[in-house]
Amino acid sequence: MTNKSSHQTGLDNSWSIGIDLGGTKIAVAMVDASGQVLEQRRLATRVSEGPIAIQSEIVDAVLELRKYSVSKPVGVGIGVAGQIDPVSGTVRFAPNLDWRDVPIGNVLRNALDMPVFVTNDVRAATWGEWIHGAGRECDDLVCLFVGTGVGGGVVSGGRMLAGCSNTAGEFGHITIDLHGPLCNCGNRGCLEALAGGWAIARNAREMTEKDPETGAALLRLADGRPERITAHMVTIAYREGDPIAAKIVGTATEALVAGAVSLINALNPCRLILGGGIIVGLPEIVTLVDHGVHKRALASARIPLQVLPSRLGNDAGVIGAAIMAMRELTMDDPLQGPESTD
Amino acid sequence: MTNKSSHQTGLDNSWSIGIDLGGTKIAVAMVDASGQVLEQRRLATRVSEGPIAIQSEIVDAVLELRKYSVSKPVGVGIGVAGQIDPVSGTVRFAPNLDWRDVPIGNVLRNALDMPVFVTNDVRAATWGEWIHGAGRECDDLVCLFVGTGVGGGVVSGGRMLAGCSNTAGEFGHITIDLHGPLCNCGNRGCLEALAGGWAIARNAREMTEKDPETGAALLRLADGRPERITAHMVTIAYREGDPIAAKIVGTATEALVAGAVSLINALNPCRLILGGGIIVGLPEIVTLVDHGVHKRALASARIPLQVLPSRLGNDAGVIGAAIMAMRELTMDDPLQGPESTD
Repeated sequence: MTNKSSHQTGLDNSWSIGIDLGGTKIAVAMVDASGQVLEQRRLATRVSEGPIAIQSEIVDAVLELRKYSVSKPVGVGIGVAGQIDPVSGTVRFAPNLDWRDVPIGNVLRNALDMPVFVTNDVRAATWGEWIHGAGRECDDLVCLFVGTGVGGGVVSGGRMLAGCSNTAGEFGHITIDLHGPLCNCGNRGCLEALAGGWAIARNAREMTEKDPETGAALLRLADGRPERITAHMVTIAYREGDPIAAKIVGTATEALVAGAVSLINALNPCRLILGGGIIVGLPEIVTLVDHGVHKRALASARIPLQVLPSRLGNDAGVIGAAIMAMRELTMDDPLQGPESTD
Repeated sequence: MTNKSSHQTGLDNSWSIGIDLGGTKIAVAMVDASGQVLEQRRLATRVSEGPIAIQSEIVDAVLELRKYSVSKPVGVGIGVAGQIDPVSGTVRFAPNLDWRDVPIGNVLRNALDMPVFVTNDVRAATWGEWIHGAGRECDDLVCLFVGTGVGGGVVSGGRMLAGCSNTAGEFGHITIDLHGPLCNCGNRGCLEALAGGWAIARNAREMTEKDPETGAALLRLADGRPERITAHMVTIAYREGDPIAAKIVGTATEALVAGAVSLINALNPCRLILGGGIIVGLPEIVTLVDHGVHKRALASARIPLQVLPSRLGNDAGVIGAAIMAMRELTMDDPLQGPESTD
């Protein structure tokens, strides 16, 4: 193999295990040095069973995948939807998993007898897009992932930003509309409260309850029960020309343009990469955001800018986690990005 | 001298010249390796006379300062209120100076026969605060300067961010209020359009014209002519309990809290440093922003955070520009910050 990625890791036939642990599903994958997923398992996250059961399921999935290769993996990388202590690999707080202070790094290390590297799930996905996705060979980029929640990552000057307590990238909680709708975080008008999947579903439920006639298409998808409306249903109804869905998607897109403009003006990336479930469901949002930011961002910041969809889609997290593990475990200055291998 | 700063530059008795070139004034200073201003000249910026005259005035001021020392300065650093090409040192665009493509780096180099390093004025001020001000010995900080305009800088993981085309830090143009007032940049609800000096003055003029009775204090300060009201007059009227000034300062503070929350959640700095003319005029804003962000930012980001006023005040720009020149001209890996000397 002679591509840039395998050159970067310096290990031609090496592979590692990437894990993406979210509030609804877990992905566990064998990933080679070129960022290819060789094998993958997907499980539902049984949050109610608690951290011991979930960690045990992850261990089983890793052991199963190991059987596919005679060579040993370099290590394990895991991205968790929560705040991570970068030194100990402990999950400090993961609201969607209902975890506090779960030492998943040590648990997996002991159970698997392999080196384990823990990070945040969105940070892992940013690594994936940076090294093997839409951000390849770019030193300054911002990833914005719009799923149930909204988050992202920043690479600046060829380095991934971590922040003071390792929580940089909480783009869902930048204020877009000072007097806007209430967010889960307690603040008003956050990007996530206007464009996140949970907010899209909330708005659709409220509007359908108020006006069931106009909301007929959404109600049909939800078997007549507004409380069952999901963001996914909104994307389907939008395709069918449903007026409520059109209004909600319009609001979300307007907020995403404003949020993107903020990030572009503040950070001046060469590329803005959009991913996550909402973008996968409504890929035309990428074009709308592209047009919007090229009208509204400062000329100095928008001229060099490209707006691109995620290239790795749902695999960004496992690929990024696996790559981080490979870099962390095989390099002198592991987490500084591609330039550090020069 | 044994302090950290002189150790960092590696040149104990060295000094350099720092220049801060803004749309209203120019400061030219001798700065030693510990960040002390030894001598300083301040001039008005005569924008209407054009770039050749302004550059010539700067050259004269530098030559005058050189007479104060028998030793030669290491070089010249200049921070310009505009967008800078970091390689050539040319000012690409400086709206407040009405400059486009002015090769100030080459002009000063030729006229002074000294190494010259050119950067953006706010970036220079961030360097000043980082190395010798409120950001000392901190690897993750955000500076937010609120003057006539609003801008700032980010240090993350011990590195100053530049961005794709060297314009990172345009915090004045993050969207705070999607449907808010029009900004100079053409967008709506930018932080600058709510909290910048020009917006404060605009709001005061409009409100006083509409309601001269309530605006009596402001009108008195402006000799009865609302069009003469400045942001500085608003800060004076605010001290006197004027209700219009109180309302405008309240709006600006609310916007600054929202903007600070956005930056804190997105970038997770250890310190947020507030400076600029509006903060100098109304230092209580620092406490109000501190309280606001500690209520509204995400717990994970606000727990490690300190909110501090600028320590160098108006000298941040000249000190920062001088330091950048010293680092740029005496180090192998100059612009990577303090850790690069380890």
